Amino acid sequence: MIVIDWGTSSFRAYRLAEDGSVRERREAPLGILQLKGPHFAGALESQVGHWEAEDDGPVLMSGMIGSRQGWAEAPYVECPAGADDIVGRLMPVEWRKRKLWIVPGLVDRTRGVPDVMRGEETQLFGVLETLGQGSHLVCLPGTHSKWVRVENGRIAGFRTHMTGEVFAVLKQHSILGRLMSIGADDDAAFGEGMVRASEAGGLLHHLFGVRTRGLFEEVPATSLASYLSGLLIGHELAQEADGTARVVHVLGAPQLAPLYARALARSGREAVILDADAAVIGLYRLARNLPRKNV
Amino acid sequence: MIVIDWGTSSFRAYRLAEDGSVRERREAPLGILQLKGPHFAGALESQVGHWEAEDDGPVLMSGMIGSRQGWAEAPYVECPAGADDIVGRLMPVEWRKRKLWIVPGLVDRTRGVPDVMRGEETQLFGVLETLGQGSHLVCLPGTHSKWVRVENGRIAGFRTHMTGEVFAVLKQHSILGRLMSIGADDDAAFGEGMVRASEAGGLLHHLFGVRTRGLFEEVPATSLASYLSGLLIGHELAQEADGTARVVHVLGAPQLAPLYARALARSGREAVILDADAAVIGLYRLARNLPRKNV
Repeated sequence: MIVIDWGTSSFRAYRLAEDGSVRERREAPLGILQLKGPHFAGALESQVGHWEAEDDGPVLMSGMIGSRQGWAEAPYVECPAGADDIVGRLMPVEWRKRKLWIVPGLVDRTRGVPDVMRGEETQLFGVLETLGQGSHLVCLPGTHSKWVRVENGRIAGFRTHMTGEVFAVLKQHSILGRLMSIGADDDAAFGEGMVRASEAGGLLHHLFGVRTRGLFEEVPATSLASYLSGLLIGHELAQEADGTARVVHVLGAPQLAPLYARALARSGREAVILDADAAVIGLYRLARNLPRKNV
Repeated sequence: MIVIDWGTSSFRAYRLAEDGSVRERREAPLGILQLKGPHFAGALESQVGHWEAEDDGPVLMSGMIGSRQGWAEAPYVECPAGADDIVGRLMPVEWRKRKLWIVPGLVDRTRGVPDVMRGEETQLFGVLETLGQGSHLVCLPGTHSKWVRVENGRIAGFRTHMTGEVFAVLKQHSILGRLMSIGADDDAAFGEGMVRASEAGGLLHHLFGVRTRGLFEEVPATSLASYLSGLLIGHELAQEADGTARVVHVLGAPQLAPLYARALARSGREAVILDADAAVIGLYRLARNLPRKNV
């Protein structure tokens, strides 16, 4: 079978054996921001057309390819949701006179203002069996960090924090970036930012302190980005430190997961880093019961 | 006398009579970001040289002209500070073979991480007499909002919130801006943002809700900027709602002061809008005891 993790900025395809093992993989900078409307089919053709010619297994895609700006909008499935709910709502699209399938995103409406994910649900399905029964808290750090409550193999609900994007825009476009210069990650400055996040005043006030601590040279210019990162991640963690979960499972890119794991340890919680290849496993689990090409 | 409010993006000069009344005024887009190092004297020459030739009164400047990027760095005076402390630390610079004076900024070190202002202290000196004795809370909304505790005619301490700048960079450079379209201010959406700010989840989470409420068309695209504004100002006000001040005095630009006054009213507090020309009055009060040109 062919499974594809197709996001905003990248395209990652995997040709899988019956048992889910990866036989071949392709990666290209063909995210949905790079491609315009009618070009999705052509991009798929160029990347995996030769696989599909030889393989009669299902083709399944997840990520922003199912968004309004993607190939076709796959409406969000409501939480709580398990893999079965998602499988029942896979969205078919026509390609090469056959069907291929898009994984819908999830919406959490349990807290009033809706929260959404698209792509992360597939990564989560890749770790549900590892997590097992009971209640678990999973953190998927990133541009938009997700904090997910998993209960007995189902996604009960989640919350998104714009931590990564706020960090990037403040560094690039605000007055805070002007005092920063390039430097190695500074773990001590990151820790000072986390401590600051636990103090009074609120985030909008703490942000100004990034400037003043730079102005008075209390934090070197090369460490200000680490201080800002610790401040923002500290604010994120403080909101998710509800005390019900002793262990936090971290599922993220190899650069980011250890940073969050250390931040969790600093705030007195145990972090377990999960397999970052979870998206492929999740796609396999969702795809394995889909019909073959000629069925 | 000649007094000048010289900030990051604008230059405003006033020729004052002995009693502080404004005889003439000039305004130019000659902020310190527009001018480079050695050009301050020339800019002053071109703008007010003819006034100075006829007038032997003192020349006093305040604002970012006293910063590291300005004409000369006037070191910060520590809080608590009154007008006398500032007058004692006015920074002289040479111009046309005479002295002119720069108002130093203030630093508040009473809460650990330092906080600073430069220019706002002069506006505050313009309203101290109006406020009178006792304890007062003054809010100066803006790119970097200041919340100032005034006690018996002195500036006891203050806190800055980056509300205005965070609003601008998120609107222009983050994913939140992509769903927004231009529309009139929407007071109802602003109010919904303020309510959201009082709920659980924290600012980084609430920001993502600007996107989801737009995605699900719960808030129209033309009102999303008002919703974001209410959310950010709501978070700012929540931090300053310490309950010790029943009345908040608002000192700001004519567009912004009424917005904050309405936000304060929504959060159950009384707002009094102060004279926005406070900078000129403050400059007059600081300048009136300075020596004349030939003394």
